[in-house]
Amino acid sequence: MAADDELTFLRWLARSDRPHDRLVVPIGDDGAVWRLDGEDRLVLAADALCEGSHFTADTAPHLVGRKALAVNLSDLAAMGARPQCALATAALPRGFDGERARAVTEGMRDLAAVWDCPLVGGDTVTHDGGLVLSVSVVGTLMTGEPITRTGSSVARPGDLIAVTGRLGGSGGGRHLTFTPRLRESARLVELGPPDAMIDVSDGLLLDLYRLDTAARFGFRLDLDAIPVHDDADLDGALSDGEDFELLFTAPADVMTRILDGWDLETSVTVIGEIATGGGVLVRDGREEPAPPLGFRHE
Amino acid sequence: MAADDELTFLRWLARSDRPHDRLVVPIGDDGAVWRLDGEDRLVLAADALCEGSHFTADTAPHLVGRKALAVNLSDLAAMGARPQCALATAALPRGFDGERARAVTEGMRDLAAVWDCPLVGGDTVTHDGGLVLSVSVVGTLMTGEPITRTGSSVARPGDLIAVTGRLGGSGGGRHLTFTPRLRESARLVELGPPDAMIDVSDGLLLDLYRLDTAARFGFRLDLDAIPVHDDADLDGALSDGEDFELLFTAPADVMTRILDGWDLETSVTVIGEIATGGGVLVRDGREEPAPPLGFRHE
Repeated sequence: MAADDELTFLRWLARSDRPHDRLVVPIGDDGAVWRLDGEDRLVLAADALCEGSHFTADTAPHLVGRKALAVNLSDLAAMGARPQCALATAALPRGFDGERARAVTEGMRDLAAVWDCPLVGGDTVTHDGGLVLSVSVVGTLMTGEPITRTGSSVARPGDLIAVTGRLGGSGGGRHLTFTPRLRESARLVELGPPDAMIDVSDGLLLDLYRLDTAARFGFRLDLDAIPVHDDADLDGALSDGEDFELLFTAPADVMTRILDGWDLETSVTVIGEIATGGGVLVRDGREEPAPPLGFRHE
Repeated sequence: MAADDELTFLRWLARSDRPHDRLVVPIGDDGAVWRLDGEDRLVLAADALCEGSHFTADTAPHLVGRKALAVNLSDLAAMGARPQCALATAALPRGFDGERARAVTEGMRDLAAVWDCPLVGGDTVTHDGGLVLSVSVVGTLMTGEPITRTGSSVARPGDLIAVTGRLGGSGGGRHLTFTPRLRESARLVELGPPDAMIDVSDGLLLDLYRLDTAARFGFRLDLDAIPVHDDADLDGALSDGEDFELLFTAPADVMTRILDGWDLETSVTVIGEIATGGGVLVRDGREEPAPPLGFRHE
């Protein structure tokens, strides 16, 4: 199936005759939010990684395991959630040796230990095919409200767009070794909170269009302001994807509060604003229409 | 990897330097139990199904999707938990057509609707290999305590062993169409609760050995009492597996309470007792040692 069909698959999966009263945020965001009987609200996400798309047969198995958990933790970060625990299943290729299998688990466990998000369950099967890792994470909300892609009803043109860290060139290795922006997310929620947020998985431009305000009103993106990795170029920063940085919007006064209070090593850079009239890229004072680009796994 | 290696994989995954204070029941049971800040305690399970082991390329995709969720719901039943919601990831074979993919999601969704356990998240990838479905379920405890395989500290010889429904011959189709015993589990908890419980996934004998009391003390199993499906024989009932019935132990007085109060259509049958001296099978009054048999997926 092509990327569009995969989105269709998720829509089929989630289609329901009626909304569920416990489902605060449904499928389609970085994570779902589910209300329990007590005071807890869960944030849930699941991602599958497979050989050929997210890593190769040559990728160090430790890094494959690490990435399978990391992309899920990044989803929690994008929702303003903190991790609780994780589940993992693995479909192992026949003949996958014990040494490599162990390295996969250690890659997951080492990252799980860093974020106090232990693996509490799982399953493993052997099959005719490449390694497939599927991880689900359970998180809880840090504050009263989740930070969604939709944002609040008060979002409007003039709201600023910002991103953590630097973008581009993840294919050189960072797509395996990135740090999920959980710490940054927690600080953003404390200082802001942001109005809408997403993690950059498929490229800045494509993921920007997934923020409802940007898609609905439009945006002006200042290409000269975009923080590009030293080993990448602007095109890569716009569309490589798998940066797993946080892309978010906030009204100007909230953004000022975030920038003034920001005290973490990871940078926060304002790269544009929500603006009427579709997507516009600004470079050296010249404007051009923004294409809905971005990298999609096949 | 062979079955034993797969268990090793799970142990690697779960190995931690110290127990986690939120992890009430760790990996190794039908589900893990995780304590949240509020009053809720989660029961979490994950299972992966793959072509070749759990279904064939010819299996109706609706039934494949159904089974992927059903085995997880069965895990919740075995813990005395009720379902909240589920996450699903799919690794689809290249060329898997949209019609079949849709049928997979509908199989999951139809069963999810029956048990009010909506699919709230997921992911899908395309790969060189057969269909791999991975489902994680989130449940909550119905009572104060989860029903584990370990059982309580007061479990002892003389405790009775019982099973819901009938066993054997699941390969003829029931492994795809079985009803997760959530209703039965809820009623057992209300009337009992059972001391220890497991769902019969790998065969009665093998799963019986997974109940700590049975493994530690031993058991006497009355082969004449075992409820066998009409299309199966006793050997099948002992070792076919994938029956997904509930196998549980309880002190005699609790078992009497369960049997006296039992008002569901699914039968509950006492099939033996915990007894010192290893595993013993009794048939027509003659005794023989029980082998640790059972079906294991390769």
